[in-house]
Amino acid sequence: MAVTFRDKNLEPSYEQRAVLQHRTDSLTILMLLGLLLLTILTVWLFKHRRFRFVHETGLSMIYGLIVGAIIRYTSDAKHLPSVQAVLDDNRTFTSLDPPDYITVYLNRSNTSGAPHDKVIYALKGALGSLEEPPLERTVTFSPELFFNVMLPVIIFEAGYSMKRKHFFKNLGAILMYALIGTTISALVIGGIMFGLTRLMTGISITLNECFVFGAYLSATDPVTVLALFNDLHVDVDLYALVFGESVLNDAVAIVLSESVETYGELSADAFDLEAFFSAIGKFAGVFAGAFAIGTFMGVITAILTKFTKVRDFPLLETALFFLMSYSTFQAAEAADLTGIVAVLFCGITQAHYTYNNLSLESKHRTKQLFELMNFLSENFVFLYIGVSIFTFEPHIWHAGFIFASFLAVIVARFCNVYPLSFLLNLGRSNKIKANFQHMMMFSGLRGAIAFALAIRDTDTEGRQLMASATMTLVLATVILCGGFTTPMLQWLQIRVGVEENETELQQIGGDSMRN
Amino acid sequence: MAVTFRDKNLEPSYEQRAVLQHRTDSLTILMLLGLLLLTILTVWLFKHRRFRFVHETGLSMIYGLIVGAIIRYTSDAKHLPSVQAVLDDNRTFTSLDPPDYITVYLNRSNTSGAPHDKVIYALKGALGSLEEPPLERTVTFSPELFFNVMLPVIIFEAGYSMKRKHFFKNLGAILMYALIGTTISALVIGGIMFGLTRLMTGISITLNECFVFGAYLSATDPVTVLALFNDLHVDVDLYALVFGESVLNDAVAIVLSESVETYGELSADAFDLEAFFSAIGKFAGVFAGAFAIGTFMGVITAILTKFTKVRDFPLLETALFFLMSYSTFQAAEAADLTGIVAVLFCGITQAHYTYNNLSLESKHRTKQLFELMNFLSENFVFLYIGVSIFTFEPHIWHAGFIFASFLAVIVARFCNVYPLSFLLNLGRSNKIKANFQHMMMFSGLRGAIAFALAIRDTDTEGRQLMASATMTLVLATVILCGGFTTPMLQWLQIRVGVEENETELQQIGGDSMRN
Repeated sequence: MAVTFRDKNLEPSYEQRAVLQHRTDSLTILMLLGLLLLTILTVWLFKHRRFRFVHETGLSMIYGLIVGAIIRYTSDAKHLPSVQAVLDDNRTFTSLDPPDYITVYLNRSNTSGAPHDKVIYALKGALGSLEEPPLERTVTFSPELFFNVMLPVIIFEAGYSMKRKHFFKNLGAILMYALIGTTISALVIGGIMFGLTRLMTGISITLNECFVFGAYLSATDPVTVLALFNDLHVDVDLYALVFGESVLNDAVAIVLSESVETYGELSADAFDLEAFFSAIGKFAGVFAGAFAIGTFMGVITAILTKFTKVRDFPLLETALFFLMSYSTFQAAEAADLTGIVAVLFCGITQAHYTYNNLSLESKHRTKQLFELMNFLSENFVFLYIGVSIFTFEPHIWHAGFIFASFLAVIVARFCNVYPLSFLLNLGRSNKIKANFQHMMMFSGLRGAIAFALAIRDTDTEGRQLMASATMTLVLATVILCGGFTTPMLQWLQIRVGVEENETELQQIGGDSMRN
Repeated sequence: MAVTFRDKNLEPSYEQRAVLQHRTDSLTILMLLGLLLLTILTVWLFKHRRFRFVHETGLSMIYGLIVGAIIRYTSDAKHLPSVQAVLDDNRTFTSLDPPDYITVYLNRSNTSGAPHDKVIYALKGALGSLEEPPLERTVTFSPELFFNVMLPVIIFEAGYSMKRKHFFKNLGAILMYALIGTTISALVIGGIMFGLTRLMTGISITLNECFVFGAYLSATDPVTVLALFNDLHVDVDLYALVFGESVLNDAVAIVLSESVETYGELSADAFDLEAFFSAIGKFAGVFAGAFAIGTFMGVITAILTKFTKVRDFPLLETALFFLMSYSTFQAAEAADLTGIVAVLFCGITQAHYTYNNLSLESKHRTKQLFELMNFLSENFVFLYIGVSIFTFEPHIWHAGFIFASFLAVIVARFCNVYPLSFLLNLGRSNKIKANFQHMMMFSGLRGAIAFALAIRDTDTEGRQLMASATMTLVLATVILCGGFTTPMLQWLQIRVGVEENETELQQIGGDSMRN
């Protein structure tokens, strides 16, 4: 394996490759845009014909699946053949693909005594006998894009468009489900998975990975069910419970999975009390920090819009609002906290305080802007999930493992909803009725967040098993539970068509999807 | 120089680096967002106090400059010391930095007879004795982001918010200035620069590079002057002329520079007729192709919005509109044409046909959405220009070259405006008055497009000279010409405060920046 420095004059074909890569990227984006357009037109057709069986997120995912399958089974993606490389110390290394990263040790000519400097290089592409970059790679879900752009939008909009009155009325129950329920769920899933995988052969997964998996799968999806609830004007208390739980438990699941990973890095094999407490400390610290940043930025925006006359210029006001909200995400990330959690609290604060200071035009603008961004992000995410299920490479499908995951998720949801509802009902005057509990049990879909968490890290065999199982779960729950939400509501005799006369906030925001 | 395969277990510090890099990225974005917020608040203050001397783009750039200077002169950016590498054939290679790309030749163990496969690796970062990635690199303008995200938005909005009546009334003159005038300008600048650089010592720049430079510097900036014209309600004919020319000539300059580069690649040193015609053919083909795609996509959107009842759901309609418009850009790029040009024509078509089919709510939504995106993009771009002037690395400052550029730009603008106006006035009943001509001469600012074109490629010494000179020109013209636009209009006795009663289009769009 020889290393040469790239010299532009010697390698004109690299420029051609860059052009080819650019064109493939454009084609990929174009294909995804086309699918998104198709989804929009189909959604319109369904709405027009009042056909409510398939929701837009399910639809996006199905279109994505079809295209992913086509790419997978038609493209003659030329995988790089086996590569043998000879290292400096004469060890040889054989690999199916060229490695993704190589480390280059630099000999500093003028500082011979100094330690070597190491420089990391990342694989860009191949030259020579290899042709176009395989489409399978370019269309695979990028967790970075999801976590830095799409998810903040979705979560912010969830906070900003919240029906606040009912949310705060049910805050105790929501916090109970989100904090304690999610932790229970993660522990139950982790425990069941660890137990069941011991019974299977040919699977290597650690206890820590099982609990990480539990945390991933405890994030229920706020998108699909709530969109249906919104369309159907379901009972406001049920809406608040499902909404509050599914939004907050994303945040909890993300922080929880990070804490479990921290514990795994710190602890030895046996139970390590110190690592356990530092994981709990991390959980509390990240949550509190993100809450503080989110609320702080929201309050600053509220003060700026209240005490300056920027409302005379709605464009500037909207821009200010938008930038402050996105800054919240970046500030939390820069402080090593979780941006998503900060953005959620920022959205709630903006809705609670800033919104009332805005000019009427900015109220419309901000609602509409975030509504549109949210709509595009949601559909893009589910489309991408659909495509990735086929084009994602490090899959390990294992029927037993997937079956165990389904079982664990159902049991864990059961252990979350029913015992906690029982406890809550002891103290509530407005009891959580049995049919509400069944509906909460049913609406525990797994969606974009579980998916993105699962594919972010697929280095070990256990992680790859987890990613494949998560994909299957997401696919099954979004399509099945999403599709059967309306019949289920009827069957459980839950009120729909509730017209609430709430604040101005909902009246502006909620009408645009309806006629 | 030894190459090792990256093994995650062996290199945990790489993960730490990725975290560090992520934090630096977040901090960079946060800093830019903070600057953008500062700009917005200052703009508001200026508008509030009716202070019109500095426009927001100039302001963004000045803030950017200050921060760029601070980064430049305070950061102890540890440049990598000189590196010596020993290649396989025992040649040694000494370089100040590790190379940006390395080519790795793979010995295929099982196909010994086959040619080597080459794989390209790109520099990701350094490990070991090197600390944080220098902030100077992270904050430097990325032409990719500009060309793929910001510029399409700015140009689309220009087309979509156009005052169509006066644009089409003056179409002949606009096309004359944009097509013939820009070509004249590029040739004059190229000629002058080639002549003057022969008189200077220590400069190496080729004839082809001079004409590329001419094409770059012929793109006048539509942002700053038009924003001022819009605020001041300047005479509609003058507005249409300056607007039409500055928007279209961006497209012409981009295609022209590509054509000159094509010519440079094809031709030998002497004049090559075949290469010349293929460059002209490329110019015509790219322009016609982009026009066709842009108009086609606009018409498709118009048909979709007219013949489906998607207008019952404004959110879907707006999403459709947005996606079709962005698809236009990607379609043109995928077809190897110029996305910017396609987007401009798409914007004009959307305004002309689709706009009238939209529901009232979508009219508002699309106007406001693109207005906001445009506002943010513009300010972000000028901020970035300001920062990059100090943090951009391959600068070659050469006073003579810069002076020559100023001279060439002024002469070229003169040769564009006055002779063509004279020719046009021969055939026009509504003559282009002398004060209009002077104002057109004055309003030939160089802005974001000249800047982005110039820094896209800085491989040779000539290119680096060009980049530094372009930056100086952009800085000087945006601040000086931008700042003196209002006094100049008064001095030339050009009507301001013209209230036009045009179509619904402007009434919705134009009011939001005013009280």
